[in-house]
Amino acid sequence: MIAIGIIGYGTVGSGVYEVIQTNRESIAKRAGEEITVKRICDLRDFPGDPAEALLTKDFKELAEDPEIRIIVETMGGVQPAYDYVKMALEHGKSVCTSNKELVARHGSELLAIAKERSLNFLFEASVGGGIPIIRPLNQALTADEIVEIKGILNGTTNYILTKMTREGAEYEEVLREAQEKGYAERNPEADVEGHDACRKIAILTSLAYGSQVDYEDIHTEGITQITKTDIAYAKAMDAAIKLLGSSKRQGKIYAQVAPVLVRSDHPLYGVNDVFNAIFVKGNVLGEVMFYGRGAGKLPTASAVVSDVIDAVKHKNTNIMTLWSSKKLELGCFEDSASRFFVRVPESERKQAQKLFQADGFQEIKAEGITGEYAFLTGVLTEREYAKKAEELSVLNRIRAAF
Amino acid sequence: MIAIGIIGYGTVGSGVYEVIQTNRESIAKRAGEEITVKRICDLRDFPGDPAEALLTKDFKELAEDPEIRIIVETMGGVQPAYDYVKMALEHGKSVCTSNKELVARHGSELLAIAKERSLNFLFEASVGGGIPIIRPLNQALTADEIVEIKGILNGTTNYILTKMTREGAEYEEVLREAQEKGYAERNPEADVEGHDACRKIAILTSLAYGSQVDYEDIHTEGITQITKTDIAYAKAMDAAIKLLGSSKRQGKIYAQVAPVLVRSDHPLYGVNDVFNAIFVKGNVLGEVMFYGRGAGKLPTASAVVSDVIDAVKHKNTNIMTLWSSKKLELGCFEDSASRFFVRVPESERKQAQKLFQADGFQEIKAEGITGEYAFLTGVLTEREYAKKAEELSVLNRIRAAF
Repeated sequence: MIAIGIIGYGTVGSGVYEVIQTNRESIAKRAGEEITVKRICDLRDFPGDPAEALLTKDFKELAEDPEIRIIVETMGGVQPAYDYVKMALEHGKSVCTSNKELVARHGSELLAIAKERSLNFLFEASVGGGIPIIRPLNQALTADEIVEIKGILNGTTNYILTKMTREGAEYEEVLREAQEKGYAERNPEADVEGHDACRKIAILTSLAYGSQVDYEDIHTEGITQITKTDIAYAKAMDAAIKLLGSSKRQGKIYAQVAPVLVRSDHPLYGVNDVFNAIFVKGNVLGEVMFYGRGAGKLPTASAVVSDVIDAVKHKNTNIMTLWSSKKLELGCFEDSASRFFVRVPESERKQAQKLFQADGFQEIKAEGITGEYAFLTGVLTEREYAKKAEELSVLNRIRAAF
Repeated sequence: MIAIGIIGYGTVGSGVYEVIQTNRESIAKRAGEEITVKRICDLRDFPGDPAEALLTKDFKELAEDPEIRIIVETMGGVQPAYDYVKMALEHGKSVCTSNKELVARHGSELLAIAKERSLNFLFEASVGGGIPIIRPLNQALTADEIVEIKGILNGTTNYILTKMTREGAEYEEVLREAQEKGYAERNPEADVEGHDACRKIAILTSLAYGSQVDYEDIHTEGITQITKTDIAYAKAMDAAIKLLGSSKRQGKIYAQVAPVLVRSDHPLYGVNDVFNAIFVKGNVLGEVMFYGRGAGKLPTASAVVSDVIDAVKHKNTNIMTLWSSKKLELGCFEDSASRFFVRVPESERKQAQKLFQADGFQEIKAEGITGEYAFLTGVLTEREYAKKAEELSVLNRIRAAF
């Protein structure tokens, strides 16, 4: 039998407790021994909770308990999670976390501490909720050099964009509804401005290339500028607008988070509602995609518990994870290239044509939309696009993945 | 440096050699040491091949070479692959194989031999080509009890069905074209009759439940009975026909391979052409799906090489794989239940309505099709359906996943 402790008894933490209770038997089979939650640390009280007797407000009771071999960290946020996780590792305990902020900021350091002590620092749940993506990147796609990662990494924004597409509704309206249903936070900034997706693509890119990607260096746009007019044009192009976190190797590695037009023949096109998916391209493997629930109590807890099982199976053995603290030098965002879908006032039609006429230029018409002129450019760098766009009153522009 | 040997220098075997040459550096980083192909066994000659100097016709030269620590088996077929793999394990070498027949028939035995000797028997490439699915099932979805697996496991049949759907063409016509393009074998039976998918779902089901599933026990239907009329009805139902290998826990485990109607809101619906995808449902995780190239030289070789890397990382340590030789008792096929889409001659309309009228019964009409009557039944067991269908001259019937 192996005892574990949980810090943070919120949605995911209580999910971890529940999953371990529910699947006790099959988990014991997979881990090779029974796993039991010995202690849970949270500053709040949970009167009447089935785990009430295990609760403490003092993390030391977990950290200093020699019987507890693994700590699950599901508090979220960088502090005090970082201090607690470090303390746990220093006390000889492996750590399994769902905390993307912590992993994005301190992943390489915490991995190094774990390695030094033949422990494990595991974080499958930090990206894509229940979808196995960290372990596949780290342990399955090892024969490949990764050339591209493109992911729908945030369920809230995907839900909003899907709703806008299905109902032809405006952003504000759908956001309000999502908030009422609990799919979006009262303060939705982290989701809708792309910050959440940004941390996740930073983690995936760091793992794919084995070096530290600082999320502050990733150009990030959210979905707040997307209108129902944009969606109507997307449909006219047989495409959908998805908030993608992506990184691509073209000489250097270029990373970004932005709404992107995805055509119906791309596997990400059909990923709707709160689902997430991560599309990975390897130089020999070609394309693979991982799809599932990117959030939610039990799916996320399932991923955390799969890490706990791995930690049990690798007692005293560090699972190799390539993620050095050496900073990966990202390519300059202004040099990254794509096609752009652009809308300008009807009065600027001629001017737009003159500026952008080139290979790949294409007029786009959508039923019922008048008074403006829309088109797809050929492939341009951000710099080239921005320079031309300066001469127009652009209503909106969205990058296209085709 | 670690030396490996390859038996079977066909498409996949030569792909393995190519992948190891191409990604030498990144592979060494992931494995922790350089991997080099020392010897290749094949009865054929390959004059002028880059690996010509490594070739031998005598497997003993690999098996008895103490420097060779890992054998890649990419011959296909049960014999002599089985003898060679056993010999390799008995000589203290781990084995990585892409051979689904071998794994489906002898997986549990070969795993046991490997375990006993602290070696590894790995077979990521045996299902889903380049898609990581064996390792995720075995190592990632460990917190869950698997309740359902549903996969598009054969690229040839998916290509044919996709073509029939897109072009409204008949089966024979598309098969001929696929054969000309090399997407289907001259003798296509193993693919089109579902045998290939059957071996693969047997492997996945064995792994999901930890016990041996004999593929002969799985009810298997192919796609040869599917007509363009069926496809037209599928479209009218906003569905597509996919050859699915599936297993489901409903009390007992029920497994089958058959063409199934999948609606457009299901993630398998958009999996087209030669792509494969495996949809897995866990009791806490919910739904995840793994998508990618189910065949092809380099994707399959990529999966084999990822196994080789794992074998290098686990020298002298057996990676736990639950798959005992104890036979998993499958539920009786006649007891498995689903809805059925049924076509009968127009003259039997009244009779059909009388027989099948119940909850869920639904008439289906498709443009331009006359002289027949089509409908969806409610949920029926195979036995119930068969009994009613006896009283009709059924033109075709396809199970529905909705």
